[in-house]
Amino acid sequence: MATDWKQRAQAKRDSVNALIPKEHLLEKIPSVEEQRDVTGKYIQQFLTDREIEITETTADDIVKRTVRGIWSAVEVTKAFCHRAAIAHQLVNCLHEIFFDAAIQDAQKLDDYFAEHKTPIGPLHGLPVSLKDQFHVKGVETTMGYVGWIGTFQGKTGTGKEKFVESEMVRELRDLGAVLYCKTSVPHSLMSGETANAIIGYTTNPKNRNLSCGGSSGGEGALIGLKGSPVGFGTDIGGSIRIPAAFCGLYGIRPSTGRMPYEGMANSMDGQNSILSVVGPLATSVASLRLLMKSLLSQEPWLHDPLVHEIPWRYEQQRKILELTGAIGDASKVGKLAFGLLEHDGVVAPTPPIRRALEIVKKSMVDLGHEVIEWKPPSHQRIVDVGFKTWAFDGGEDIHGALGLSGEPPIPQIALYGDKAIEQFKASEIAAVNVTIRELRKEYMEYWNSTKELTGTGRPVDAVICPAAPFPAARPEKYHYYGYTTFVNLLDYTAVVVPVTTVDKEVDKLDESFEPASKIDKACYESYDPAVYDGAHVSLQLVGRRLEEEKMLAIAEYISSTSRELNSAAV
Amino acid sequence: MATDWKQRAQAKRDSVNALIPKEHLLEKIPSVEEQRDVTGKYIQQFLTDREIEITETTADDIVKRTVRGIWSAVEVTKAFCHRAAIAHQLVNCLHEIFFDAAIQDAQKLDDYFAEHKTPIGPLHGLPVSLKDQFHVKGVETTMGYVGWIGTFQGKTGTGKEKFVESEMVRELRDLGAVLYCKTSVPHSLMSGETANAIIGYTTNPKNRNLSCGGSSGGEGALIGLKGSPVGFGTDIGGSIRIPAAFCGLYGIRPSTGRMPYEGMANSMDGQNSILSVVGPLATSVASLRLLMKSLLSQEPWLHDPLVHEIPWRYEQQRKILELTGAIGDASKVGKLAFGLLEHDGVVAPTPPIRRALEIVKKSMVDLGHEVIEWKPPSHQRIVDVGFKTWAFDGGEDIHGALGLSGEPPIPQIALYGDKAIEQFKASEIAAVNVTIRELRKEYMEYWNSTKELTGTGRPVDAVICPAAPFPAARPEKYHYYGYTTFVNLLDYTAVVVPVTTVDKEVDKLDESFEPASKIDKACYESYDPAVYDGAHVSLQLVGRRLEEEKMLAIAEYISSTSRELNSAAV
Repeated sequence: MATDWKQRAQAKRDSVNALIPKEHLLEKIPSVEEQRDVTGKYIQQFLTDREIEITETTADDIVKRTVRGIWSAVEVTKAFCHRAAIAHQLVNCLHEIFFDAAIQDAQKLDDYFAEHKTPIGPLHGLPVSLKDQFHVKGVETTMGYVGWIGTFQGKTGTGKEKFVESEMVRELRDLGAVLYCKTSVPHSLMSGETANAIIGYTTNPKNRNLSCGGSSGGEGALIGLKGSPVGFGTDIGGSIRIPAAFCGLYGIRPSTGRMPYEGMANSMDGQNSILSVVGPLATSVASLRLLMKSLLSQEPWLHDPLVHEIPWRYEQQRKILELTGAIGDASKVGKLAFGLLEHDGVVAPTPPIRRALEIVKKSMVDLGHEVIEWKPPSHQRIVDVGFKTWAFDGGEDIHGALGLSGEPPIPQIALYGDKAIEQFKASEIAAVNVTIRELRKEYMEYWNSTKELTGTGRPVDAVICPAAPFPAARPEKYHYYGYTTFVNLLDYTAVVVPVTTVDKEVDKLDESFEPASKIDKACYESYDPAVYDGAHVSLQLVGRRLEEEKMLAIAEYISSTSRELNSAAV
Repeated sequence: MATDWKQRAQAKRDSVNALIPKEHLLEKIPSVEEQRDVTGKYIQQFLTDREIEITETTADDIVKRTVRGIWSAVEVTKAFCHRAAIAHQLVNCLHEIFFDAAIQDAQKLDDYFAEHKTPIGPLHGLPVSLKDQFHVKGVETTMGYVGWIGTFQGKTGTGKEKFVESEMVRELRDLGAVLYCKTSVPHSLMSGETANAIIGYTTNPKNRNLSCGGSSGGEGALIGLKGSPVGFGTDIGGSIRIPAAFCGLYGIRPSTGRMPYEGMANSMDGQNSILSVVGPLATSVASLRLLMKSLLSQEPWLHDPLVHEIPWRYEQQRKILELTGAIGDASKVGKLAFGLLEHDGVVAPTPPIRRALEIVKKSMVDLGHEVIEWKPPSHQRIVDVGFKTWAFDGGEDIHGALGLSGEPPIPQIALYGDKAIEQFKASEIAAVNVTIRELRKEYMEYWNSTKELTGTGRPVDAVICPAAPFPAARPEKYHYYGYTTFVNLLDYTAVVVPVTTVDKEVDKLDESFEPASKIDKACYESYDPAVYDGAHVSLQLVGRRLEEEKMLAIAEYISSTSRELNSAAV
């Protein structure tokens, strides 16, 4: 068994790659030196003009055409299958390919439209990619574990293998979406990079020196290459926001209880102190809204016991639209108020991130909005407590999954050591839960207190902050997760917004920088203008709990306020 | 220390009783044989006609007068203080008395009204009683533990003793409520009877052979005697519904995340697999609605991290009002659909409970509503898993609290043995959490499936079921909690509705009964028509998660459908 896992991984890899249509195979994959950036013109060379037109349309614009029968579901699906196949060859972003089933599903949608002259739902004919935690009929779920190949979540003989579908998959199908591939993850999901023994390492399509992010890294890389218009990831410590940020996408980490996680594979399932949540990544904010709004129209609270009965609230969006003058009369126009977190007190952001903060700050100030310094309760404390929850079981779940095949853990999950250690006991977990509640209360009251500082009569509407200290992590150099994990501990809503790209001539090293700690030093030293040149630089907008509609409206507004911001996404 | 606890308990008891105004002391407390029922005419003899008028007005009707300045806050407060003082002497229902502070607060409200000609809020001048888990400035919280006397939740030197207030206390004050007493609980809160070393045993005012219920037992007894118009209890396994049912009150167990628990004392705080929730008990459904609606107007989600941003939804209520013809036009009138759970498959209800089920069923069928048999997934499994969560810490928290004084556990919490045992570890807790989620999913889909059976086009609107196998427990005979605990595990909304009273001539023993188990036998044998004669008989209406508005509307409707139902509450 000690070496057997390599062969099993290879066999799985081969079987997936064998599903790429022969005519879509590339003759040669360029080295990073030859071709750092494989997005845009590079990938376009393998596609027809029509395929480019379709795949470079955002999800919200695609459905405007598919629900009216202007574009057929089959044509749209085939275009994305082709581009996804190319993307996978360039950056290793797929775990599962089921193009044939997708095209059959798309044909059924076209038949339905031909017969009824009406779409099956608001996502009629829209291809949607899924992180490899979703169960899809006829398709395996490995979550990157060699030991899960040929099983249902590591178990054999359950009768569920390739048979069950996750709740959200059912809802997406009912809405008319077309499912066609599942995307890569780091095994265990507990990493901001994406690597496993089956597909190797998923690189960042915009700059292949860098990671595409994780754990929903395959989503980031695939959508970054426009091999998918929109896809779903999950986030327990940043796993939606990190790949969105690294790949120049919009991505939302909803609060717990908003989107249905029911029936998905997971790590450490049942740890309920900090829950993983599911949410979309896409090339426009409108696409994120389309997906969330459509799913909520399915009343997921009737099928997922963890979802709250909170329908899509246009009211939250309307207030932002009125304040920013997009709708309503002049009497309703007002200021937005932002908190700006330039440094979380633990690790300093690298130069390109600092520049991005300045860009957004300036854009808001220039338009008359209020930007105040965000001086929250200690993020160090928050981050420390968060990490405890992920270590409750001492690594039993993860080492159990690795042990099924004998494969070693990837170096990116060093947190779990090389074997399981002693677990937390009930009273220790309870104490952590009490601390989490206390930290949430403290942060909440700090947020409330900003009402006195904004001049708007309201506390700040959103906090502008980094999603990571760097634009993207370099392989095995993801030293600090605090900029995303604090959001998970607080269960806040957070949206990633692309801001700019690294310019090695502008984003130079800050020679005067004095690190405050070893980790601060390591993060800073991982930044190298030459290596990072061209990479996406994104930020995070953090709202309070269950403010999804409001935060998407703010993200959309910010992205519309300058040509640079507007064109920062892929 | 081994006997010291008795003296400390006695001293505390004496110090509380010393706060009863001398003129309100009773000369003699009758024995049960002399006076089984101390409600109604019995307690009225100690009050003036005006006091009776005030204290026998429901909370919703009181505020109609106080917010208009028709009744003064001081007069209302004094009347309830007097009646509460009598009630306490009759049934031992108070832990803390702060009448003087209450009258001062009421005076401030009257002054405010005199000056501004407007009330301070929708609860202006309304006395509200609180279970002894709420922290109130200037007042102790013992939760029935001798070891907590003179401490803050068992700890000394925190600076919080008699200083902090729970979040809901702050909100109640802001709404204009007057706080005047805290009510008795069983130490540990983990019992459906109310007993502790400080106040002894709280009896049922309607039939002092019986328990008032627990753990919010003091609330049940006090409101049952109309010593309070409305009060707050908490519920992790039935602790609001049990005293409501036993004392002939309406009570609601909201789903988690609806009402603010922030800053309250609790047992096993941080156990977050099945959370305790807080909710009101009162003598009318309208009173429950008034309190919940008023609290939600305070946006508790901005001050309690566990509360969801779900404002009061009139829409849910409106649909029930339309279906039942209370509002809207004839085209909107329709049928309600109920599931009837006559037996949970574990323990048979005793004869009076069976009769109550028949009364409500007949009432609904006579009015044309649909009543189908409720055949849910195994309640035995649900109940078994629920109990595990309460044993996660092996009794460490409870025995720790008892150990502070050396007092022994009351026999009603035998679940926790006489000392702490081995705790659950993280992976075991996670496995329980997964099972809970699976059970919720299974029950949810069963509920969905009833859409095919009701003929209304909807699944059942509510399940009618017992709240306990018996009308009230006899001391130390509470053998089965499954009828309430299944609701906690499923996190459903449940409202208790009084239905009738025991008539020993009608509710005779069923000689043909054959118990299915030892526990079934024990519950059945605890019922004795002679002992129970006159006791309240109530039922439970169970709705889905977060359906508080809907369930209150249904409860109000059912209670209005016959004179018997309408007059069943105290």
